[in-house]
Amino acid sequence: MAGIYQFKVEQGSVDGRGRAKIGFLNNAIVNVAGMDADISGFGIGDVNQENCSWVLSRYAVQFDRIPVCDEVISVDTWIGHCEKFFSVRNFVLRDAEGVQIGSAISLWALINIATRRPMMLEEMHARDGVAFVEREEPMTRPAKIGNVTPDITAEHRVVYSDVDFNGHMNSMRSIEHLADLLPYEELLDCKGYRLDINFSREGLPGQLLTLACQRGEVNLFDVSCDGVSLTKASMQLF
Amino acid sequence: MAGIYQFKVEQGSVDGRGRAKIGFLNNAIVNVAGMDADISGFGIGDVNQENCSWVLSRYAVQFDRIPVCDEVISVDTWIGHCEKFFSVRNFVLRDAEGVQIGSAISLWALINIATRRPMMLEEMHARDGVAFVEREEPMTRPAKIGNVTPDITAEHRVVYSDVDFNGHMNSMRSIEHLADLLPYEELLDCKGYRLDINFSREGLPGQLLTLACQRGEVNLFDVSCDGVSLTKASMQLF
Repeated sequence: MAGIYQFKVEQGSVDGRGRAKIGFLNNAIVNVAGMDADISGFGIGDVNQENCSWVLSRYAVQFDRIPVCDEVISVDTWIGHCEKFFSVRNFVLRDAEGVQIGSAISLWALINIATRRPMMLEEMHARDGVAFVEREEPMTRPAKIGNVTPDITAEHRVVYSDVDFNGHMNSMRSIEHLADLLPYEELLDCKGYRLDINFSREGLPGQLLTLACQRGEVNLFDVSCDGVSLTKASMQLF
Repeated sequence: MAGIYQFKVEQGSVDGRGRAKIGFLNNAIVNVAGMDADISGFGIGDVNQENCSWVLSRYAVQFDRIPVCDEVISVDTWIGHCEKFFSVRNFVLRDAEGVQIGSAISLWALINIATRRPMMLEEMHARDGVAFVEREEPMTRPAKIGNVTPDITAEHRVVYSDVDFNGHMNSMRSIEHLADLLPYEELLDCKGYRLDINFSREGLPGQLLTLACQRGEVNLFDVSCDGVSLTKASMQLF
């Protein structure tokens, strides 16, 4: 339910400034969640045996400094508590000198694979004796994103490389597609960023998605299919 | 100049059948090339100090079995020899039982960052005392791909997530975009694949690329910008 993990920023995953790309960093964070859940006995492999799967519902991340190529980053993760349908997992990221460079909060739902309905997590965690770590959350919770008035739109067909083990658009891949709507130079020039994302419906292979961005100090994003919103997000570069 | 490395197939990088995605696997292979070059003293960081950078020129890979989630794969890599402008790096991939599941051959050019011209590698490797490993190449060399008569075309703008430390379209990202032209079910249903790719020119941020695929037992691909071919490839699923 808690642990400290490490990852190294790979050469193949850095941007034109030699810094870890948004997709790589957030994939590394979610990967740590998977490892810690596996070790704790309620990972994807475990819950699959009960015909369930973990789905990321809301996620917020902030990097005050973006790590560079070959840096080893430690990720301190813990489950703070659980709400009716959501398990709340926290992350603090530190560099090799122990300086905090980022943090994240993720809310996970456990869905029944057949019905796609969320399970009552409080009951399951109580049954399985999941122990929560009493510790202050490292940042404010993922913001709820409202309406988006698009300044930029793009279309994207959900392809093989987008889709994960659940058979749906991978949540970290969605983050890449949204960030890619922003001007290339802004992404290279920022010192850090905060990203908040709400996943409400899942993108399926072959679907044609509309990606929309409302530009501002905080950029707002919406991913929709046939007029129905799947994902909303906000991203502030600073 | 030679070594054995390991990587684990991550949950976040598997397809709807729980098998390592094409982008993840080939990224892992190229990542091993980077690690081995670093350890051997001629990695990206080393050659950057001489205002040079490694660029992948030709690449072939074959997987007879696609590894599944959580499998640990070992990559046995060595530089067989070097031609005038190309260093030839080989790879054999084995599963935890030591069974060979795949192999790859890569031809790398060392370019001067300012002029973008290739360096005379034979002379440099001789100067640096690079030792070659005399060992049979694990597969046939990357095929030279000829003309492509498109059955499928798509457009793709080169975005932030595509671009790597060289400031160009990442070669493994190109492989993802090409594979994504094929039908989703074929990619999920194949037992293995062979991919050959020739990189002749580099895609730049903001460029609008035309991706073309000629369907057949061996699918042929071309990536072009304003009618000029950047990359050609072939891919056989079996």
